[in-house]
Amino acid sequence: MKALLPPTSYEYATVRQVRGEQVQDATDVLAAEEPLEIRVGYGPVGQREHRTLAITMRTPGHDFELAAGFLLTEGLLTGPQDLQGILYCPDVTKDEERENVVRAELAPSVQPDLPRLERHFYTSSSCGVCGKTSIAAVHAAGCPRLPLGTVQVPVEVIHQLPERQRQAQELFEQTGGLHAAALFSPAGELLLLREDVGRHNALDKVIGAALLAGQLPLHNAVLLVSGRASFELVQKAAVAGIPVMAAVGAPSSLAVSAARDFGLTLCGFVRQQRFNIYTHPERIV
Amino acid sequence: MKALLPPTSYEYATVRQVRGEQVQDATDVLAAEEPLEIRVGYGPVGQREHRTLAITMRTPGHDFELAAGFLLTEGLLTGPQDLQGILYCPDVTKDEERENVVRAELAPSVQPDLPRLERHFYTSSSCGVCGKTSIAAVHAAGCPRLPLGTVQVPVEVIHQLPERQRQAQELFEQTGGLHAAALFSPAGELLLLREDVGRHNALDKVIGAALLAGQLPLHNAVLLVSGRASFELVQKAAVAGIPVMAAVGAPSSLAVSAARDFGLTLCGFVRQQRFNIYTHPERIV
Repeated sequence: MKALLPPTSYEYATVRQVRGEQVQDATDVLAAEEPLEIRVGYGPVGQREHRTLAITMRTPGHDFELAAGFLLTEGLLTGPQDLQGILYCPDVTKDEERENVVRAELAPSVQPDLPRLERHFYTSSSCGVCGKTSIAAVHAAGCPRLPLGTVQVPVEVIHQLPERQRQAQELFEQTGGLHAAALFSPAGELLLLREDVGRHNALDKVIGAALLAGQLPLHNAVLLVSGRASFELVQKAAVAGIPVMAAVGAPSSLAVSAARDFGLTLCGFVRQQRFNIYTHPERIV
Repeated sequence: MKALLPPTSYEYATVRQVRGEQVQDATDVLAAEEPLEIRVGYGPVGQREHRTLAITMRTPGHDFELAAGFLLTEGLLTGPQDLQGILYCPDVTKDEERENVVRAELAPSVQPDLPRLERHFYTSSSCGVCGKTSIAAVHAAGCPRLPLGTVQVPVEVIHQLPERQRQAQELFEQTGGLHAAALFSPAGELLLLREDVGRHNALDKVIGAALLAGQLPLHNAVLLVSGRASFELVQKAAVAGIPVMAAVGAPSSLAVSAARDFGLTLCGFVRQQRFNIYTHPERIV
């Protein structure tokens, strides 16, 4: 289940290690961070247009999954049928840049709402900027409430998730600097793990992988994220249909409000045989 | 030195606590997360225009500092002389939204490069998307190399920073869900601390506070950030003139490259009497 890491996902560096008063030089492994430009191609056959949607700082590797997950969770795609293909942009001339620019070709029938995306994927000033309207905007973008009763997860499974994630991260954990997102079955079996310097990117890679494999909606999956639970992570999970999300760290107020409203079971502080359930505890048995 | 926290910075929630097999309901404190829309007013007197620059998910509190720090570190301001004032937008009609929209009024002489900002503050596709060009873009936006020899920080001071930061976070640490950025003197005295659900926001608040107090460049300060060191955090520190940055977590490859190039001393994994120096160790004595 370990993700295969391309050599561009990490780098070696010489560092000066300070241990109390002791100082020595050593070699360290760093998680790579490079910008990824996400472009889309859209429009009817013969009148295709291309434009840049976003640039994100990410760890190279699984870039097509990242782009696909980003486009889905931002509401540009509703499913695999909206996507014709993803490629590294062949018209980027510099070698060191080519693998930092991906282009997603949308199906000719898809009409992307680009002005909305340019407003940084949030509500415009005219329709309001507060937590309540942020949640409403996610619903408006086509995210239904998650069905109750589809999945039941035993308490012991939740307790085990962080350790299972850590074991699968074994190789990459050398860098000490990566966020992870992982999907598990309700019985605690690891299904998919992705890592990135950015928390949102790790989750977009997981969701994009599921999208490209035709596995959406993820109504039978449990998600673990390595850090805190923010509004945006909850929003992405809900769009992908994930009913149970666990975070090693704390949730924010808006993450809890959004999870309550989307019908998502949100657990936080999952560590050392303890956790809190913030919303919809009926799925944890 | 503790930041005064407005009541909107946190919220209470009822949670179900799971401790091994034990389950009980309890009250928990959550870090608040709400969107903040940052607008700018610009142009000559009599022909002023307003527009939205960005929307960021942040913890309410110190919003004017956040906006000022964001505008400085994104290259829109070069110093306090470029800023006429910051206010909550008086033309937002809904009460719950008014404190989520701030407007920075730029001096009439400032001509903001808005097309550049709309490309998400990065280089356009025509000038390249890779780590090297990201660093070059920061230099091009007016960030000079940091002067060497201005500051010397004893090893023992670096060891003490996380504990000093934690003590100052005492109140807010209840939530367990906040990033912090803090400025210290080279002798380890805490100068300023800000917290936020977003790491970049915490640093923007610190830098914005220094900008509004007329204290830039921060050539005599040491910065501690609570999480990992990313490219964007290093870039913000360099723009503010901070010569020494310490992170509790790991740095990314591009954070190290950028720190080397900007002349910034970057320490990582600062915890439990240990840390690594990644660049410019000559400032640590």
